[in-house]
Amino acid sequence: MELCFQRIRSTSRFDKAQHRLCQLPKGHNGNHDEFPYLRHLQKTNPTVAAKIKRDATMTTGAAWKSDDAGPNRILRWMMILSDEELLRYGVNMAALSEQVVAKLREKAANYDACMRVARKLAWFAYQMPRAPIPPEPIQTYLENFYGPINSHSAYCLVCRQPLEFNLFANARRGKADVETAHSNPRIHDDNNVGFAHRACNIAQGAKTLPEFYAWIRDILNRVDASHSS
Amino acid sequence: MELCFQRIRSTSRFDKAQHRLCQLPKGHNGNHDEFPYLRHLQKTNPTVAAKIKRDATMTTGAAWKSDDAGPNRILRWMMILSDEELLRYGVNMAALSEQVVAKLREKAANYDACMRVARKLAWFAYQMPRAPIPPEPIQTYLENFYGPINSHSAYCLVCRQPLEFNLFANARRGKADVETAHSNPRIHDDNNVGFAHRACNIAQGAKTLPEFYAWIRDILNRVDASHSS
Repeated sequence: MELCFQRIRSTSRFDKAQHRLCQLPKGHNGNHDEFPYLRHLQKTNPTVAAKIKRDATMTTGAAWKSDDAGPNRILRWMMILSDEELLRYGVNMAALSEQVVAKLREKAANYDACMRVARKLAWFAYQMPRAPIPPEPIQTYLENFYGPINSHSAYCLVCRQPLEFNLFANARRGKADVETAHSNPRIHDDNNVGFAHRACNIAQGAKTLPEFYAWIRDILNRVDASHSS
Repeated sequence: MELCFQRIRSTSRFDKAQHRLCQLPKGHNGNHDEFPYLRHLQKTNPTVAAKIKRDATMTTGAAWKSDDAGPNRILRWMMILSDEELLRYGVNMAALSEQVVAKLREKAANYDACMRVARKLAWFAYQMPRAPIPPEPIQTYLENFYGPINSHSAYCLVCRQPLEFNLFANARRGKADVETAHSNPRIHDDNNVGFAHRACNIAQGAKTLPEFYAWIRDILNRVDASHSS
């Protein structure tokens, strides 16, 4: 499927650095749209649609301790720009602590990758048990990229247990029980993302999934050895 | 070893709720002291001594978002008191969110248990590779409660790998790489605490250690089954 990729007009100062592009099929009718496959979730489950957009395109928030600690969230593709370029957009990286800069920079991803991530996350969300059924055009659009949407077939990226759609709503201390997760936390692209239980995502931490599995396997080997000795 | 347990004078409003007691051996000379076994670490590694006191006696801090979210840390034994009693000490639990109250209340522990935890943590710290050597009176005091101090024999409570004393100093995002950990996170007593790598403590989360090990064993079973199928 070829996409339209026409520039979408925006008044955000950041969108001068990277134009937002229409993701509808080439030759579509009607207005350009950056997230056409989210139109349905925006109506049925607006917080889920907003979460998919946010996780796909923004750096994660940190518990910044002070106002001068920097932006809580910023567009991931801005984090590809040099400090000098960012200054022109009013983002002064030099004013941030080394740790905050590292945390922001490690979330860098180009615009196209972020768009692919949002699309893949929408495809995943529709596969969760208890997810709404997508309208046919959205289903066709998403399946064109990632294959059949089998409802009730979504698993946690980390623990491989089923992941129910209603976990999005279970807010706990302001956090949903399901989070966007990365097989390799340093790569933000559609072949590397999925959803995971919050506890699983936290346990994985900065490790890749293979590193995480090797780590817990070693832990169990040591625990088992100490019990049998 | 019988301890002195004489009341230590204090001007803190909170110490009217629970008197602080001298932990020196009964019949000791000199001033009463609540943490006599920390006197040496207070000189050689003051941040470690402060961490042991803080972790043993205070609720953990949360990333409170606003000033009215409540105290960041409070004495654990205050959290045993009823809301009515706490009001008399100037702590208004009714003004805090349900989540903050739950987080504070789950850290409740009585004074004696907190004192035992501090003592046990000091005993652990001296066993870490690269730890300073305790003066003989402190070594005797701690060994009287918990057995021989074998230097270089401290393991992470969670992953069972060696835990080096200098991890206390490796601050990362304001956090040391070693944390106080609990086999059962809901029980704060000396037979249930130890030190753990920060990543291990985070991965364990709210689970007991047996729950954590069962959880990661199940994960590996699912991962292995999916690879062999």
